[in-house]
Amino acid sequence: MAKEFVKDVTSMDEDFAQWYTDVVLKAELVDYSSVRGSMIIRPYGYALWENIQKALDGEIKRTGHENVYMPLFIPESLLQKEKDHVEGFAPEVAWVTQGGDEKLAERLVVRPTSEVLFAEHYKNIIHSYRDLPKLYNQWANVVRWEKTTRPFLRTTEFLWQEGHTAHATDEDAMEETLRMLNVYAYICEEFLAIPVVKGQKTEKEKFSGAKATFTIETLMHDGKALQSGTSHHFGDGFARAFGIQYSDKNGELQYVHQTSWGFTTRIIGAIIMVHGDDRGLVIPPRIAPTQVMMVPIAQHKEGVLDYAYDLKERLSSVARVGIDASDKKPGWKFNEYEMKGVPLRLEVGPKDIENGQVILARRDTGEKVTVPVDELETRIPELLEEIQSNLFNKALNHREEKTSVARNLEEFGEKLESNPGFIKAMWCEDQACEDKIKEEFSATSRCIPFEQEKVGDTCICCGKPAEKMVYWAKAY
Amino acid sequence: MAKEFVKDVTSMDEDFAQWYTDVVLKAELVDYSSVRGSMIIRPYGYALWENIQKALDGEIKRTGHENVYMPLFIPESLLQKEKDHVEGFAPEVAWVTQGGDEKLAERLVVRPTSEVLFAEHYKNIIHSYRDLPKLYNQWANVVRWEKTTRPFLRTTEFLWQEGHTAHATDEDAMEETLRMLNVYAYICEEFLAIPVVKGQKTEKEKFSGAKATFTIETLMHDGKALQSGTSHHFGDGFARAFGIQYSDKNGELQYVHQTSWGFTTRIIGAIIMVHGDDRGLVIPPRIAPTQVMMVPIAQHKEGVLDYAYDLKERLSSVARVGIDASDKKPGWKFNEYEMKGVPLRLEVGPKDIENGQVILARRDTGEKVTVPVDELETRIPELLEEIQSNLFNKALNHREEKTSVARNLEEFGEKLESNPGFIKAMWCEDQACEDKIKEEFSATSRCIPFEQEKVGDTCICCGKPAEKMVYWAKAY
Repeated sequence: MAKEFVKDVTSMDEDFAQWYTDVVLKAELVDYSSVRGSMIIRPYGYALWENIQKALDGEIKRTGHENVYMPLFIPESLLQKEKDHVEGFAPEVAWVTQGGDEKLAERLVVRPTSEVLFAEHYKNIIHSYRDLPKLYNQWANVVRWEKTTRPFLRTTEFLWQEGHTAHATDEDAMEETLRMLNVYAYICEEFLAIPVVKGQKTEKEKFSGAKATFTIETLMHDGKALQSGTSHHFGDGFARAFGIQYSDKNGELQYVHQTSWGFTTRIIGAIIMVHGDDRGLVIPPRIAPTQVMMVPIAQHKEGVLDYAYDLKERLSSVARVGIDASDKKPGWKFNEYEMKGVPLRLEVGPKDIENGQVILARRDTGEKVTVPVDELETRIPELLEEIQSNLFNKALNHREEKTSVARNLEEFGEKLESNPGFIKAMWCEDQACEDKIKEEFSATSRCIPFEQEKVGDTCICCGKPAEKMVYWAKAY
Repeated sequence: MAKEFVKDVTSMDEDFAQWYTDVVLKAELVDYSSVRGSMIIRPYGYALWENIQKALDGEIKRTGHENVYMPLFIPESLLQKEKDHVEGFAPEVAWVTQGGDEKLAERLVVRPTSEVLFAEHYKNIIHSYRDLPKLYNQWANVVRWEKTTRPFLRTTEFLWQEGHTAHATDEDAMEETLRMLNVYAYICEEFLAIPVVKGQKTEKEKFSGAKATFTIETLMHDGKALQSGTSHHFGDGFARAFGIQYSDKNGELQYVHQTSWGFTTRIIGAIIMVHGDDRGLVIPPRIAPTQVMMVPIAQHKEGVLDYAYDLKERLSSVARVGIDASDKKPGWKFNEYEMKGVPLRLEVGPKDIENGQVILARRDTGEKVTVPVDELETRIPELLEEIQSNLFNKALNHREEKTSVARNLEEFGEKLESNPGFIKAMWCEDQACEDKIKEEFSATSRCIPFEQEKVGDTCICCGKPAEKMVYWAKAY
């Protein structure tokens, strides 16, 4: 019975894309709907998002930001105020052209991002240096009209937070841009157990309208990269387009300097593809909706369920504990919570009760240990921490194994084939070389990492002198 | 200086609508934008919403519900599946007709509410009696194309939660409908200090597609009513339209019975109009973003600010405490936090420090008390509770003063004029009478209250025998 259940999931090695689809559906993270390219986020998927939100929102507030809410719609004329920005977004937005019975005089864009709305608001409320900095964030849905979609990774609508800040100086804005990139890195590494590469995007890959874009890049199990959070430095581009000025201490008018930064439901795709295996999801304990799932054994026997519920009550002070007392067979339950990636399973039956012990099974390693019940309050948190760091270390080792160095294009192609993953290679900073690599290998520059490493002297593509080492990869 | 600040707000008696607009802007709850009918919810307004959300989400989860997220867009054909529902909503929705460069084959509605999306999903995931009940909720934005709008009260886009549940029997669905109405009443009365009248909507006023709609009705300072939360019993209407069936314990196919219930940012309008006064907002302590605002006096003097910050740190364990150490004059600060409705102001200056005391000023009564610093940990929570119940009692007294009985139409018109508020009057349950009252007095039936009171034997309108007492009022 157990076997049959698992058989429903395609193995990762056989077909990674199909494995992904199987897992998001079987683990009940999402469901499809008749709305093209949109997904339904089911309770288990949404609980995961709520835990990520809680961790990130805490950091956003701790660093002095305030939450606000901007309108969903953007008038076409407002979107057009910043030229680079509108060029980047216009081809991929949804247009509202009718409200009730009335055809609209001006079309409305369903926000793909909210820079122009924040810019308009900042123009209204910023007057003096005393009003700066403005450190705003919003949790919202956004829409980008994608041709091909996959749950979490690329959907017409997704959920995210978008921070938008305004500062007195360019330096302040740069400091903010990097502060929030570091917050994203912290959330990924400490909560999601996903190691990141921090760096700057190339000119070609930067955000429409930004002066500089910074990114955290992560590596999936199949060796493809995922851009997992970006932070943009706008300089005074939007300020000039929208006329956002403040009078400084000398009474002189100055333009503000802005940033924006976003983190989306896409990260759930990374959790799946970094930690998952052929048995399904593996969720890092710190964000797991259920950290310990109790499965009573021989639950029809007198006293078992009472004992189990009492234990659940007791353990709720040290972990998020669930219990499945349904009439399904234990084997079915084991498979279900393995599929859902619950970090620990707790089995308790008549014999265990007699012996004053329970069995704890780890999702990450499959290990089973017998633990005296009076030690659970210390052992469970310890085990959860062990699982958390084991997942991070596994992911880090995997990334390191999948990171190669290439010194010329031939080596590049060979490495990409034999050991798909990140490729570190020198680049002359000429976009022509970047374009050529993309065309030839379907690999893109992921970032110019902050931690530079001189893996050569010349550009991998044109052979000219090169100062910058770049991470390249095929990417989602 | 203090006077001038207050002068900026129109007095309530002079022009209540203008007072409302002045307060939402001056207290920095919202700002306008170039998006027609939409508002920007500023940090102070959003913090208020977050506190309301937190209280309500806690209750929603405590009563066994799970959060999910449904798509923003609804294909036109899906909306049309339930006839009454589409008739009610089609005239007031925004239509997406183009995505990127492509004209859509089928128009999409920006969700005005999500019954049809939940119905489609429930059809997918409900098969057996074991799958029931399904108790889902989502926090989302919705759009209704309103002709005239006012911040919080009526906006093209608003934020809300919408619960959607499916049950095995009609009785289960009814129990759920009333459970959630009671949750709304609890949130209003216990957190927002707003007394409610609970009851059923008439056929004319019920939700499009519902079998029965229940409501909590509140009374604003100007005597107008505000529908503050509704809970709908759908019976099996959507189940039949969408084919949502489960096999019962005998293996026979049955239709599910559904409910939905919603609570919106509109409630912030109620907080403003129930508790506010000519000095601005008055926020109930339990949901106040800042419960105690500290204003240092003579803060340039040595030791004052250090002392104040230490005290803030200390008091943060018993309340949400803010401090304004800006270079504005204390009088300005007093006015600002009165405008923002912060429940308690704490003044501390050199003399207070010397005497080991501070001054606490209540926003609701204006009272000032001198309190020894070592009693603050007990006095502050006590005072916040006193303010909370004082606000509720004031609102309840106000509602009772503004509630009249009418026995005929003449009396009805006279009472509505002399003492605008709720009018309790008998009704024969004929819609013609309801229509006539609306036409003649612009007053609508607010609800048939659960707590019936036989204020007469005959319909106020037609004079025929009447069993039902109805609350009537002009409404927002």
